[in-house]
Amino acid sequence: MLPFEKAEYLERIAKTKASMEARGIDVLLATDPANMNYLTGYDGWSFYVHQLVIVALDRPEPVWIGRGMDGNAAKVTTYLDHDAIVAYPDDYVQNTEKHPMDFVADYLNGAAWGTKTVGVEMDAYYFTAACHEALKRGLPNARFADATGLVNWVRAIKSPREIGYMEQAARLIEKTMQVGIDMVESGVRQCDAVAAIYQTQIGGHPEFGGDYTGLCPMLPTGVGTSTPHLTWTDQPFRSGEATILELAAARLHYHCPMARTVHLGKPPQKLADAAAAVVEGIDAALDFVRPGVTCEEVEAVWRKTIEKSGLIKESRIGYSTGVNYPPDWGEHTMSLRPGDKTELRPNMTLHMIPGIWLDDWGVEISECFRVTETGATPFANFPRQLFVKD
Amino acid sequence: MLPFEKAEYLERIAKTKASMEARGIDVLLATDPANMNYLTGYDGWSFYVHQLVIVALDRPEPVWIGRGMDGNAAKVTTYLDHDAIVAYPDDYVQNTEKHPMDFVADYLNGAAWGTKTVGVEMDAYYFTAACHEALKRGLPNARFADATGLVNWVRAIKSPREIGYMEQAARLIEKTMQVGIDMVESGVRQCDAVAAIYQTQIGGHPEFGGDYTGLCPMLPTGVGTSTPHLTWTDQPFRSGEATILELAAARLHYHCPMARTVHLGKPPQKLADAAAAVVEGIDAALDFVRPGVTCEEVEAVWRKTIEKSGLIKESRIGYSTGVNYPPDWGEHTMSLRPGDKTELRPNMTLHMIPGIWLDDWGVEISECFRVTETGATPFANFPRQLFVKD
Repeated sequence: MLPFEKAEYLERIAKTKASMEARGIDVLLATDPANMNYLTGYDGWSFYVHQLVIVALDRPEPVWIGRGMDGNAAKVTTYLDHDAIVAYPDDYVQNTEKHPMDFVADYLNGAAWGTKTVGVEMDAYYFTAACHEALKRGLPNARFADATGLVNWVRAIKSPREIGYMEQAARLIEKTMQVGIDMVESGVRQCDAVAAIYQTQIGGHPEFGGDYTGLCPMLPTGVGTSTPHLTWTDQPFRSGEATILELAAARLHYHCPMARTVHLGKPPQKLADAAAAVVEGIDAALDFVRPGVTCEEVEAVWRKTIEKSGLIKESRIGYSTGVNYPPDWGEHTMSLRPGDKTELRPNMTLHMIPGIWLDDWGVEISECFRVTETGATPFANFPRQLFVKD
Repeated sequence: MLPFEKAEYLERIAKTKASMEARGIDVLLATDPANMNYLTGYDGWSFYVHQLVIVALDRPEPVWIGRGMDGNAAKVTTYLDHDAIVAYPDDYVQNTEKHPMDFVADYLNGAAWGTKTVGVEMDAYYFTAACHEALKRGLPNARFADATGLVNWVRAIKSPREIGYMEQAARLIEKTMQVGIDMVESGVRQCDAVAAIYQTQIGGHPEFGGDYTGLCPMLPTGVGTSTPHLTWTDQPFRSGEATILELAAARLHYHCPMARTVHLGKPPQKLADAAAAVVEGIDAALDFVRPGVTCEEVEAVWRKTIEKSGLIKESRIGYSTGVNYPPDWGEHTMSLRPGDKTELRPNMTLHMIPGIWLDDWGVEISECFRVTETGATPFANFPRQLFVKD
């Protein structure tokens, strides 16, 4: 069932260990579900309880620790030997008397890792403050290091097979976005558009299936287009209003996101103008992308291109994407914004999404792309424009 | 757009403040997205960046703090005055140089709350270790108290309108489960079953729409039924194999979960026997439920009922549910398990899910129910059995 050869996983482990050595970390606790998947193949919606993958410099392969009932999921979805799959009893779950990280600390002590430098992902979603406190309490002789983003950065450059899965996700998002745009019609309930979007995201290609995405479909409409992260209601779309579709499709958890904006009826001039400026800005920024340029330089090209439009865009215009789990499809590494001096490299993959959100309206048009040896190639082939429907 | 009268939100605030006072907390930082929604109505898939709602004893209504671009979402979805909606600049997002909780600490200091007792949800999903560290650094004169579960416990007893939304979710899950069972056929791709499930979850009722659920549809099949949290692949269902459908539907984020198991072809005797025992156990435990009995007493009835079957069930058999956001639909308060002495009260709502997961097979049948004045009423009307298809 593994989506990659074991050798590819072991390469990832080797890169992770090199980064650990560079930071003086002996034992890494990877709690981000995408990092767990990347290192071991582990795949289940079990991240609502505490779980992790341990990478230790003195052990060739990782160890998975999770809830008892999820141990069989690790057996089914990973390449790990069964003795590297460790399950904690169920009464650690959501219990004020004991914490799963008490169990993890005991395990680390038993493995003679309790006096080592332990890397923890301080700002990963599911590594709560209580996790940290329990580990500090249970490992009084360990030194803790912040390993936020360590594995995420290893993930930044994609392998050919990873690119292949993102290309499959692109085939799914092309179909999904088209269905979404088709469904936005005056009088159609928003929830029915989203139902069709989900249907296509997951089952829309005859040759491969889609997965759940890191964010759900987002569908601001009317005055809601002034903000990006609203979802849907059961109210109908209305003539004279805009709707933003910010969607993705995912293949084996590898994402291809895409945003487009639809207007029912003749759009206000300011919306048409803003959309044209955004498209021109994306065109110019993508044209500028090549290995060796920095994230902030890409953003600067966008900024300069749209200057004449009078639009002001304070927020970042993009971020790295790839394999991910809810609640995000971004990788939390590089951002296309001033101050980010990350140099782009071939097979980095980013989502450029220079959304404009103003007082009571907005527009989103985006492109997910791969950095090539000489430039940038969008994953999807879909008109980069404002869609106007009668 | 608010799903409840403002008065209902203010009642929730009053109950929250009473609980804060009882625990000596002056200022509560609610970071759990369900708690943020419950207290203010806030609703957007923006919990992938740090955000929170502040409830302070010395201020009548809450304050929302979140990312700049999400400020308009707070204006659209909450009852808060616009001066209680505070947005932080975008360069706080996923930046190793500064953290959104630095901004929050500055805000608290500015509001003269920096010397108070500040309650934080230490084990809420999105309250990371880095959040805690930033707050401690920025609020050197505050006292911190663990407020994990404080608002969750206020949520435990549902209002008539909340019950109404869960009843609508029940109408959706009845249709969704039927579609799921219909789609499990030899040769049908798993992803196509899930596509139809999503379609029905969201758009399946003519009178109201569905929302995304706290967990995605789970669909272990074949040997995968030995564990609960596997999702789907694009491989076909196979004759002679079982499939578990653990699904929910959600109405305005209020959930009605349901699990059923399907077998294609004559089931092995052990599966048929286990399913019969599980149903008998659920029947007996539901029959025992009434106000005043404890969670552990309900579990004990289940345990005693299935004893003769020889099945062993180590994990909890249920938990409180209601309004929620990914990654969970459980409320992290009471669990139906030994040691939980919570007394059931009218209008508590729980999901009883005594799943059985063994070496290479398993079975799940569940029921979401409301505690009434005299007993228990399941939300959904759906046959409580193993489904066998030719």
